[in-house]
Amino acid sequence: MIPLDLHPDRLFPADPSARSLARELYATVRDLPIVSPHGHTDPQWFADNARFADPSALFIVPDHYVFRMLYSQGVSLGALGVPRAAGAHADDHPYDARAIWRTFAAHYPLFRATPTRLWLDHAFRTVFGIDERLTPESADRCFDRIAECLADDAYRPRALFERFNIEVLATTESPLDALTHHQAIRASGWTGRVVTAYRPDPVVDPQFERFADNVARFGALTGEDTATWKGYLAAHRIRRAFFKSLGATSTDHGHPTARTLDLDREACQRLLDSALRGTISLDDAESFRAQMLTEMARMSIDDGLVMQIHPGSFRNHNPVVFTEFGRDKGADIPMRTDYVHALKPLLDNVGNARGLSIILFTLDETTYARELAPLAGHYPVLKLGPPWWFHDSYQGMLRFLEQAIETAGFANTAGFNDDTRAFMSIPARHDVWRRVVCRFLATCVVEHRMGDDEAHELAPALAHDLAKQSYRL
Amino acid sequence: MIPLDLHPDRLFPADPSARSLARELYATVRDLPIVSPHGHTDPQWFADNARFADPSALFIVPDHYVFRMLYSQGVSLGALGVPRAAGAHADDHPYDARAIWRTFAAHYPLFRATPTRLWLDHAFRTVFGIDERLTPESADRCFDRIAECLADDAYRPRALFERFNIEVLATTESPLDALTHHQAIRASGWTGRVVTAYRPDPVVDPQFERFADNVARFGALTGEDTATWKGYLAAHRIRRAFFKSLGATSTDHGHPTARTLDLDREACQRLLDSALRGTISLDDAESFRAQMLTEMARMSIDDGLVMQIHPGSFRNHNPVVFTEFGRDKGADIPMRTDYVHALKPLLDNVGNARGLSIILFTLDETTYARELAPLAGHYPVLKLGPPWWFHDSYQGMLRFLEQAIETAGFANTAGFNDDTRAFMSIPARHDVWRRVVCRFLATCVVEHRMGDDEAHELAPALAHDLAKQSYRL
Amino acid sequence: MIPLDLHPDRLFPADPSARSLARELYATVRDLPIVSPHGHTDPQWFADNARFADPSALFIVPDHYVFRMLYSQGVSLGALGVPRAAGAHADDHPYDARAIWRTFAAHYPLFRATPTRLWLDHAFRTVFGIDERLTPESADRCFDRIAECLADDAYRPRALFERFNIEVLATTESPLDALTHHQAIRASGWTGRVVTAYRPDPVVDPQFERFADNVARFGALTGEDTATWKGYLAAHRIRRAFFKSLGATSTDHGHPTARTLDLDREACQRLLDSALRGTISLDDAESFRAQMLTEMARMSIDDGLVMQIHPGSFRNHNPVVFTEFGRDKGADIPMRTDYVHALKPLLDNVGNARGLSIILFTLDETTYARELAPLAGHYPVLKLGPPWWFHDSYQGMLRFLEQAIETAGFANTAGFNDDTRAFMSIPARHDVWRRVVCRFLATCVVEHRMGDDEAHELAPALAHDLAKQSYRL
Repeated sequence: MIPLDLHPDRLFPADPSARSLARELYATVRDLPIVSPHGHTDPQWFADNARFADPSALFIVPDHYVFRMLYSQGVSLGALGVPRAAGAHADDHPYDARAIWRTFAAHYPLFRATPTRLWLDHAFRTVFGIDERLTPESADRCFDRIAECLADDAYRPRALFERFNIEVLATTESPLDALTHHQAIRASGWTGRVVTAYRPDPVVDPQFERFADNVARFGALTGEDTATWKGYLAAHRIRRAFFKSLGATSTDHGHPTARTLDLDREACQRLLDSALRGTISLDDAESFRAQMLTEMARMSIDDGLVMQIHPGSFRNHNPVVFTEFGRDKGADIPMRTDYVHALKPLLDNVGNARGLSIILFTLDETTYARELAPLAGHYPVLKLGPPWWFHDSYQGMLRFLEQAIETAGFANTAGFNDDTRAFMSIPARHDVWRRVVCRFLATCVVEHRMGDDEAHELAPALAHDLAKQSYRL
Repeated sequence: MIPLDLHPDRLFPADPSARSLARELYATVRDLPIVSPHGHTDPQWFADNARFADPSALFIVPDHYVFRMLYSQGVSLGALGVPRAAGAHADDHPYDARAIWRTFAAHYPLFRATPTRLWLDHAFRTVFGIDERLTPESADRCFDRIAECLADDAYRPRALFERFNIEVLATTESPLDALTHHQAIRASGWTGRVVTAYRPDPVVDPQFERFADNVARFGALTGEDTATWKGYLAAHRIRRAFFKSLGATSTDHGHPTARTLDLDREACQRLLDSALRGTISLDDAESFRAQMLTEMARMSIDDGLVMQIHPGSFRNHNPVVFTEFGRDKGADIPMRTDYVHALKPLLDNVGNARGLSIILFTLDETTYARELAPLAGHYPVLKLGPPWWFHDSYQGMLRFLEQAIETAGFANTAGFNDDTRAFMSIPARHDVWRRVVCRFLATCVVEHRMGDDEAHELAPALAHDLAKQSYRL
Repeated sequence: MIPLDLHPDRLFPADPSARSLARELYATVRDLPIVSPHGHTDPQWFADNARFADPSALFIVPDHYVFRMLYSQGVSLGALGVPRAAGAHADDHPYDARAIWRTFAAHYPLFRATPTRLWLDHAFRTVFGIDERLTPESADRCFDRIAECLADDAYRPRALFERFNIEVLATTESPLDALTHHQAIRASGWTGRVVTAYRPDPVVDPQFERFADNVARFGALTGEDTATWKGYLAAHRIRRAFFKSLGATSTDHGHPTARTLDLDREACQRLLDSALRGTISLDDAESFRAQMLTEMARMSIDDGLVMQIHPGSFRNHNPVVFTEFGRDKGADIPMRTDYVHALKPLLDNVGNARGLSIILFTLDETTYARELAPLAGHYPVLKLGPPWWFHDSYQGMLRFLEQAIETAGFANTAGFNDDTRAFMSIPARHDVWRRVVCRFLATCVVEHRMGDDEAHELAPALAHDLAKQSYRL
């Protein structure tokens, strides 16, 4: 048996003086409540408060960070319990939670030096009290321990939410979602704060599956004629207000690029027409999405929802995996992303607007120092989101801080968000951020680039306050 | 009151052995005279030697690094005393130096961990003897202290120039400039060495305001027919010689891209014709600028002026700010920049020429290791300028050294230049460079990648000699 | 005289705890045999086992890392003994090994902080026992010492191969090569394992000199009608099998881009036709190469040869140098490189194929975290090659490890390869890699991001095993 320790100094610098200060700063933020202003957890968990099914269903089957790594080494997704997409071949792997777990354990060394390993070990140790490393030898013991916990009411979603010390958690829903889970949470009397966010891909991306049907349903939901540009925009305003009534303080936009446009109404109507007819070209679909970013920004000025732009992922890059297993299966690959030209039409329109707040994310780290920090360091409406997805990691956070802060300053950043569907990883992810922030600040102080008092002010701001303020939570 | 200390070990590594050697190396270069071979200070300061007006006019109103950061957080440029552009709405903020200073002081925490903070604190402490951090509480005391100093003859431009230990300072002027201030400096008998540099944007960029008028004035100044390609080039040669007679050793070219071309004379004449008619297309304007880089390089072979290329800024990105306040208002955003294809026409022509020296700059750090170091590590005519603008920072310098030197070597770099219009920041900027260089060299020695004797040779080269040699000063 | 020491702790971190662990890890891998699965040494050395001619012919004349640096500082290639290309002007520099060496010694400070310096010093000290730094003063003594050694049988290629503890060494040959040297090595009874690799540029790149002639010879060699697409592909299969019979386990593809295609047979025939006629457009030449990557991948599924893709170099950027001296003269400049779109046609076709292994390299470090690690961390057929060429350096290796591993993990990398034609540098290059790997792992452990036991497992994997396994050696 190999012990599983979470060293109290993990992620801190080796130098004793910097480590000592990092430790001191971290002590001031370690226990701050978690503000999770953007993510993809399932509101049904908190509405139904049902038990999580089993260790594999909790940690492996839904986590593309986990199964993509095993897939890259030749393990089939079926062997990991990943369900087939509707219409795909019948599954030749009957679901066997323990078998999946053993396969996972056998491949656990693949995650060495990855953030996934940090998150998993953190959850195993702090949530489930496991004190040995996951290995083929310990696999069954770990499985049993987690399964035993999950049977306990203390491991139901709401209890964990409270134990994780989550102050507020945002989920992400489509405008077509009735938000019944969010309504149920509110009706339940439970005091946990779970809010929604407006993610309109199904009705703003002409390439989304069943786009025309979606827009028709969008009309039916809102009583607007969504075949007209005016009615289509009005429907957005109505659903945004509904989302806001269920706690939403933000919208989210995950386009392939950051392209924006500001076309006249006739051009917009023509784009909408061709999108609804299903005859829209790839270029025009891009234009439609680009126009909608500008429209969403204008609506945000009116209703105060904070706007998030998450561009730059080539989704579903592997057609074999997409056909068999569907979306979000670890086959999304970042692309080079331009902001300086792409955002100009939007910024020309609303870049200096009072009250508007747009949080920019990237999967292209070359833009931190070159484009994003200079943009956020000038435009009053822009802030920088934390390192995202592949870059939500120890090294990724350091690169973000080292490359963005000198130009943007801390105040033009939006603190941290975990952006995760893996509920168990939330405390771990925030912990990594808090540790890296304290490391960064401690190094600044030890190298006499910042006052000790300033680092003590910034640590809680970065750990908690900036996220809360930036997302108006 | 919070003390303002400049720690003697600032910017040095935390490790004791590396810090100790960095300190030792720094002691050998700290007091070397400043060679400032490229920048944007105002020659009138040294010609007239008039007092600086007030603390805000000195530190805030003209410094886009400063006011863009406050603007990004919602402070209006008017509230910071930034003057309106000609033709813009009347100013609703009467100039109030103390009120501006207080606003600035209230936002001073925005600059934490930015290079601006290092420069300002350095100037406050070493130039004005201020021993407390700028805060809302200390704002008036700091203002009064600076104002009191500025009334003293020891704070006139020439006295500061001497106190700053500036060996030579280059300003940057347009070919249309009569260089009266430079002539006045020379006529005054003052021994401070202030030289000009040839920056021909107004007559080589067809998109520059009043380009045709400028070219006509260019012709009048030189007695050449600048409507012909031959006369236009001859006019450049005449003005370059004039600039050289007033100390110029370099030219400077700030194009949007690094594109170069080598067209035949007929094509050049056609481009000039359409540029002068004001009918030139965007593509042809780019071609005109591209051709002019090659022409300038050819002239440099003849007259020995060192050529600088500063590409990659999307100038005046914010039309609202541009319309109200004009150029250089903190709204210039770096763009992805290609060198390997862009420079080829020029290099095909003059890349192996004896006596030619071209110093390349970038706002796109991805090119350091990928394009610039390999180019400078091969072509005899190329050298690398230091980290520029947003990257003239502690982390930016480290990235440059870590990414460029392994391929280019030190000898293919041009030392440091501050490129600033903020006179007070010059000692601070050179000090940051010297400290980071000593840190880098010390780390190389402590990790046994370089001999101690070699680091001692390189420190003064990087701090002083390479700039002087590269710019032929 | 300045001593030449190779400090036992070179390249290790300054922090004592990390340094101590790096030292401990390094002790476990320092003496492992060298697996060199990809490179450009000359098989004739091992076939003939003739003495190396002289110090300059060994270290300077053939090494573009060396002579490009001197060229960039104004030394002519002729003065360094670089031979003229066929058809170029007669050489005005009679070959004088000692004069070349003195010129080199006088410029040795140019290499400070470069990997070349590390490699040369390592060879001077460990291979030739030189104990003083190369300077103008020591130049003759160093020259004489090396010359004396080279006259000794212990310095013949096979003896050095054994002394270097090379387990296996791959060279790289054209399909048109008869592999006589490889056959001679095998026939000689010498037990050194030298294998070939299939590098088909002369017959897959329509822009290669004498492409049509090459393809005709390719047909003659194989008895296939290489003017037909079917015969052309069949010829590849035949030569691949022949290469495999002489130990090849890999192919290598050095295209300008990573572009792939999957066209139908008719389109392929049309491309081949125009390529053979010499009328192919630049775009179609790119398509031909792109198609051939997909064809090669398909053949690799059948014959098991590991496929390497080395894209992104703008070869022969300097036409003056190319005309006078030919290829590979230090004038190859990296370009921005896309993988996410470029590889999609190939990956759509074979990205999930059992048994296929493709190793990706890059000269564009921005792709490590953005494209390559996410691709390798998903697709079962992809692995990441080590830092290549300009990035085969201390800092380059650190950047690779810091940027790729968090997403790809170690198991999706292919260990190290030296990719060199400089035989003397092989031990040095592997030593740098082993040191940097141990440094990286030690830092992970000291910062509690990895277990000590895991670092001890990974060090030999990265130093030896992964390369052997990835290349199926």
